[in-house]
Amino acid sequence: MRQSILAKNDRLAERNRGFFHARGLLALNVLSSPGSGKTTFLRETIRLLGRKLKAGVIVGDLATDNDAERLRDTGAPVVQITTGTVCHLEAEMVARAVNQLKLDGLELLIIENVGNLVCPASYDLGEDLRVVLLSVPEGEDKPLKYPPMFQAADVVIISKTDLAEACGFDRKALLTNLRRIAPKAQVFEMSAKTGQGMDAWREFLLKRYQEQKSREPLGV
Amino acid sequence: MRQSILAKNDRLAERNRGFFHARGLLALNVLSSPGSGKTTFLRETIRLLGRKLKAGVIVGDLATDNDAERLRDTGAPVVQITTGTVCHLEAEMVARAVNQLKLDGLELLIIENVGNLVCPASYDLGEDLRVVLLSVPEGEDKPLKYPPMFQAADVVIISKTDLAEACGFDRKALLTNLRRIAPKAQVFEMSAKTGQGMDAWREFLLKRYQEQKSREPLGV
Repeated sequence: MRQSILAKNDRLAERNRGFFHARGLLALNVLSSPGSGKTTFLRETIRLLGRKLKAGVIVGDLATDNDAERLRDTGAPVVQITTGTVCHLEAEMVARAVNQLKLDGLELLIIENVGNLVCPASYDLGEDLRVVLLSVPEGEDKPLKYPPMFQAADVVIISKTDLAEACGFDRKALLTNLRRIAPKAQVFEMSAKTGQGMDAWREFLLKRYQEQKSREPLGV
Repeated sequence: MRQSILAKNDRLAERNRGFFHARGLLALNVLSSPGSGKTTFLRETIRLLGRKLKAGVIVGDLATDNDAERLRDTGAPVVQITTGTVCHLEAEMVARAVNQLKLDGLELLIIENVGNLVCPASYDLGEDLRVVLLSVPEGEDKPLKYPPMFQAADVVIISKTDLAEACGFDRKALLTNLRRIAPKAQVFEMSAKTGQGMDAWREFLLKRYQEQKSREPLGV
């Protein structure tokens, strides 16, 4: 049952991927626990990128459109998916949301997933990069305790670094745990509140977009 | 499919409930996002209760037995459930774990669920009290964004209050949001790190245990 749901999702995710590439979009699937700071991080990312890389957003939540409203303040087009009791986004939900998004002129498609460090790990949405946030107050052991999510990450963002001192954060322990579970993930440490570390992330995205643009869009 | 899984779980949960009552146990199902401080909170709870209310623990995680080890330091008996990729505990897993726990002399059964603010909300484990933690750094909007979890809570613990200043925490906004979603839940605010607020929680548990003990064990 679960296998067949996932296999169907994987097919629809590849269709999304082909569609995104044909439209010249770099697609991010952004994941974390509730309250890790995804929305603030994305709002600051969109602001920093400005006209250099024009972003549109699809945002998933069980309830409310608070996050969509906060993201709309950036001027970016935003589509909200409300999942009710469903604990993750699926490729089909994303496909439906894409149909509501004005894609002309967009270069970056950001998909903010439901806050959940377990279930969304199993669902490909057609993204190019899977970006997992882990906020400093959550603790250094999380990569070991939620391995599927961190194993599947292309990028790990250590967020809320401004709280490191107040939390007695052990940076070295977290990096050791991350390296064990996700040896190939790119790691960025940042505070969207103070702006510290955001520039490196911006440069990474711009470079990654250029690389993708220079490749064959349906290349494998 | 989902309905039939949940209906089966609900039956097994009632069986657990009858068993716990026959053994004179007060059972807690403790839930939150990853990194809200469940394990530290429970360790301090067990220490504070001491011989007044002897506790045993069942702890669920996708991977590692770090939490079980930290809880064993209190001297309480602990059984670890490792769920692999499963995002929640089910009544049947708890029943199997109870068989491994020495129940003689225990009065409080604490079940620490998988860190997830979505899926565990749907699974009754046979508990008497559902205790949901929300840590200050997660933000004031979480009850609105994850309504099923907060609607099902008997007790809400606002944890990590020592970080309120560093986070610019808006206590009034959180309490307003909580009252909207969970008007009947008992709310405790505390820091397991500083001990602030832990006494009121201890008194609540002792009183609740005495109340339950004075009732008919199979009363409805």
